[in-house]
This record gives sequence, C-alpha cells and structure tokens, in this order.
Amino acid sequence: MEKNKQILLAKRPEGTPDQDTFTFEEKEINQPENGELLIRTLYVSVDPYMRGRMVDAPSYVAPYQLNEVIEGGAIGEVISSKSSHFSEGDIVIGGFGWQTFYTAQEDEVRKIDKDIAPISTHLGILGMTGLTAYFGLLEIGRPQEGETVVISGAAGAVGSVVGQIAKIKGAKVVGIAGTDEKIKYLKEELHFDEAINYKTTENMEKALEEACPDGVDVYFDNVGGEISDAVFTQLNKFARISVCGAISSYNKETTDLGPRVQTVLIKKSALMQGFTVGDFFDRFNEGTRALASWLDEGKLTYEETIKGGFENIPDAFLDLFKGNNIGKLLVKVSEPSAK
Amino acid sequence: MEKNKQILLAKRPEGTPDQDTFTFEEKEINQPENGELLIRTLYVSVDPYMRGRMVDAPSYVAPYQLNEVIEGGAIGEVISSKSSHFSEGDIVIGGFGWQTFYTAQEDEVRKIDKDIAPISTHLGILGMTGLTAYFGLLEIGRPQEGETVVISGAAGAVGSVVGQIAKIKGAKVVGIAGTDEKIKYLKEELHFDEAINYKTTENMEKALEEACPDGVDVYFDNVGGEISDAVFTQLNKFARISVCGAISSYNKETTDLGPRVQTVLIKKSALMQGFTVGDFFDRFNEGTRALASWLDEGKLTYEETIKGGFENIPDAFLDLFKGNNIGKLLVKVSEPSAK
Repeated sequence: MEKNKQILLAKRPEGTPDQDTFTFEEKEINQPENGELLIRTLYVSVDPYMRGRMVDAPSYVAPYQLNEVIEGGAIGEVISSKSSHFSEGDIVIGGFGWQTFYTAQEDEVRKIDKDIAPISTHLGILGMTGLTAYFGLLEIGRPQEGETVVISGAAGAVGSVVGQIAKIKGAKVVGIAGTDEKIKYLKEELHFDEAINYKTTENMEKALEEACPDGVDVYFDNVGGEISDAVFTQLNKFARISVCGAISSYNKETTDLGPRVQTVLIKKSALMQGFTVGDFFDRFNEGTRALASWLDEGKLTYEETIKGGFENIPDAFLDLFKGNNIGKLLVKVSEPSAK
Repeated sequence: MEKNKQILLAKRPEGTPDQDTFTFEEKEINQPENGELLIRTLYVSVDPYMRGRMVDAPSYVAPYQLNEVIEGGAIGEVISSKSSHFSEGDIVIGGFGWQTFYTAQEDEVRKIDKDIAPISTHLGILGMTGLTAYFGLLEIGRPQEGETVVISGAAGAVGSVVGQIAKIKGAKVVGIAGTDEKIKYLKEELHFDEAINYKTTENMEKALEEACPDGVDVYFDNVGGEISDAVFTQLNKFARISVCGAISSYNKETTDLGPRVQTVLIKKSALMQGFTVGDFFDRFNEGTRALASWLDEGKLTYEETIKGGFENIPDAFLDLFKGNNIGKLLVKVSEPSAK
C-alpha cells in the first residue's frame, strides 16, 4: 500500500535552518469520507515567509508546531472524491504543504483552471507571489508615471513581478540582486531600466545615486538590512516604502541592528508600511484577474525554478537563503495523470 | 538709538548644542520702505526641529547659515507701517526668529486676532505645535473610538495636544514622559488614562504591556530611540505610527543604531509615516478652526513655559534637550504696548 510521505518540523532552527530542521515520516493515507476528497500532491511551494513560522512567536500566521507537517501552498490532483463539488482529475490548490497526499475537507481547497496557464503558475505569478507583488506595489507603493521604483530581491518570485507591474504603470524601474545572472535577467528579460549587483558593488549609496538620478519615489523591500539602509539615503520627499520581506533578518540569532529610520522618515515625509498578502484577501479575485490579463497580453513574463522530487523539498527551501534562484521556486512532487 | 539685537549661528554643533553655538550681535534697525512694516518682537518660539536646521545637510527646511539670524516662529507688534494691510499696534506672526526687531515685507507675516486667545497661543496650541498634533494624529494615526493611542514626549508642546485630541476622538490614551511632575500633569490635568515615567521604569516593554492590555493601535512618536523600540513590541495588527520627532537622535554624533523595524512592520501590517506640519499647509485654516473651537469649548487645555528676556533664548532652546519643560516653551522678548 502506498503511504503518505510527510516532512515535519523536527526542531526550531536557531540561525539558518538546515537538514536537521526537518524530519521525514510516512503515514497511512486516509480515505475520504462524506464531504472530503483525497489529493495527490503535484507541486509544493517553498517561500521565505516559512522561516518565520518555524519560530514559536506570534506573527501574522501561527507558528508551525513541532512534529507536524510543514504547511504551505500546494497544488494537487483529486484522486478520489466524496464531495459533490470535486471530481477525480480536478486540479486543486490549498495550504496542505509538504506531504505527498492529503485528505481535505471540501472547503479547504479550491479548483483551478488548467487551461489559462500552466498549473504551477497558481503557486507563483497567478498565486500568492503575484498577488503579493500586485497589492504591495499598487496599494502601498502607488507608483506614478515617471517616478523611480527601486526593488530589492528583484529577481525573486515577488520582486520580478513588482518590477514588471511598475513598468506597466510607466515608472522607471531599478532592481537590486546578487548575481550577474540575475542582473542579466532583470535587464534583458524583464527590461528593468537599471540593475545593481549588490555583491559586487562597493558603495551601494553611490550606485543607487547613479542609477536613480531623480531619487527614489517607491521602494519595494524584500530584504531589509544594509541594502535597505542604502536605499533609505536616496528617498525623495513623500517616498513610499512597501515592506514585503526582510530575508536578511530571518536567520539572525541576535537582534538585527541598523540605523534608526525615524529621522529620514521625518525629513522626507516618507511612508513605510508592512503588509502580508492576506491583508488583501477580499480583493484576490481582482488581483488574479489583472495578473492573468497582463500575462495573456504578454505584458508579464515569469521564471520558475522547479526542482524535482519530494525528498528535495528541504534542499529547495534552504536554497532560498543562498540567493541563487531566479523567479518562483517550486518542487514538483508528482506528474498529473494523463487525462 | 535703539538697536536690533540678533542671535546668530556661530558654529554648527557636534552633539548637544551649547552657548558657543550662538553669538549675539547688534545691528541698525531698518526703517520700513513702501510695502514694508517694522515689527518689535514680543515672543519667540524655541523648538526641537531647529536642531536639525543647525546641520548643513538637506532636510525639509533649509539649514541655517553661519553668522545669520536663527529663524523661527515669532510674534511681534507692528510699530511702524508703510503697508496698507497693517497698522501700528497690529499683532503679527512670522518666521523672523531670534531678533528684537524685524523689517518685514507685507507678505512675510500675517495678522493674528488678539481676542480669541492669548497671543502666545499662536506659537503653540493654535500655531505650528497644535497643527502638528492635529494633522499628525488625525491624518496618519487615525485613532478610532476605543483604540489605544500611545504618545512619547507626551508632556511636550505637541504631545500634550495629541493626547487631548485622541481623548476627544474616544481613544484610550497612554503617555510616556520623563519626570514625575509631567506624569502628574498628564494624568491629573490632561486626564490621560495612563502615564509612564520612562526614567524610573526598569522594563518599558512590561510597563507598556500593563498600560495597554489591548495592545497599541496608534503610536505618536516624538522621541525615537529606545522608547520607540519598546512601543514597537506592543503594536497591534494594522497599527499606525505617526513619526513626528526623534529628539533622542538629534544630538547623536554617530549613526543612531537600533533594532531594524522591517520585521515588526511586516508581522503587524503596520504603517509608519514621517511628516512635518508643512505637508498640510493648504489645510492650516481647517486645523486652526478645529483647535480654536475645542479650546473655546473647554475640551483642550494647554501649558506654556514662558521664559523672560531676549538674552535667555539660547538657554531656553538648550532646555528642550534636558526634558524639563511641560507644554510649549517660549521666550517673552518684550511687552505689547498698552493700547
């Protein structure tokens, strides 16, 4: 009998997580009862925010529990249904996370349309990462035509979409990333106006000043830390900072210290706002429609890095903190059936 | 012949300003020409923001020039007018600063009504400090009935007004200040719900947690530094931080380091916005009307600390950084004439 393979949180990481953070286990597969459906996992998402859930502290989502499955965005195929809303072969998305099978209540997952785009995009540009870019940029950053938008983590799943939406809105877009391959991707594939490799740049303030001769109106921040400190020196009056992520802080074992921001916020009458995509839950349909339509018109492009094999999920997650991946990072767990 | 006594910026302070930062000088009084008026100074304002203008760096207002008069809010009496808009005896307000006489262009100053409130209030609760409180709290903090508003520098010119407006709006108000006299003033005179003396409190996070059992929805920040770090640990989801001042940073000779705020802003979907009162320039009339009407209805009260004597202006300014004054700090330079 096939088993349900699961990846559990073995211990709470101090500093950077490693393989010992996780443990593998096999469980029986629960056959669905009335109102339930059995899902075979096709893709799972690995995302930086998951690092936050590994800590036992209050945050915007509950922390992961020890010896429980790592939850997170996943796509699967319905292989058996006792719900009138789902049929065998349906492709569904939900938060069932790092396991090969899942027995879901019918209200825990939703069906996705396999025809509008590759199904994996529902974990990326048409899913949480695309929506994060869409709302974080348009609701907090509010770029106006001709303004300068700077994005850190620009080649990542969220950053790459933010830059493209900013271009659609007529802004000048400057990306910050950490490899030459990413810089090339930002300039050649995504047509960013400028891109700065922070790892090979000695003086970030100067590089930003050169890339943004009119100053910075909008900063979409995925990383925090010293990169953001440098961007803060270049803000224009009434700048807006959309604080999406702080990956540079996530693995710090001590308090992450930096220049206090109050003085620059006052001098520039600047706004800095944190958010998570869930804040815009009741507008997800609007966001998905806009993203799908830009994708359809060829105004948006995306990159996915898809790793293969359930057992490689922890590796893929750890890769997020090495800064090597471009675009959305996914793990393909199994093939959809041939229907 | 009487002279115009002036206080000039003698040198740019490093760290805390002292008497050597300033120099006194006497100049001829310029008689007004057509369209001009001669003003004898009655009151001058001393404000924390002036520290920022002593540094030669771009900010929201131009830096003071060496060997030039320290500009700032002042009230005077017209003693001679060659403008059809002003008559001898009119009381006017402008930015002419630390000097005993000033020959103004007629569009540089505006007349104030001596009957609605003591004229000094136009440098305080009916002037820039009142408007700073009004717009910073209501436009950025946006307190809702029943929410908890925390104010640092709560007994100061701005903070004391912020707390009273927050009470008018039905919020629970918690003030932070640095002397027992101020704590008493906040609780007994201004009817704040709670007040915390940060100088005698060992654990600010714990004190705030006790004073704000429902968390902090709005933080009006006049001080920055470690007090603000502590408030940040108590923020509620969707908290708003109105960043008005950072007096704890102003005299630092090196970069003021503290815990980076990005992670908490994300976790709490919190907004942090800096401002200066000038951002709301086109709504000053609205603000002044609201403040005057609350004052008239007895819903607002205010405290002024008025020092006497032109030569004491630098002392009064330096007092701002010692944290002893309650309410608005002014210097009375001369008496209005008996008319």
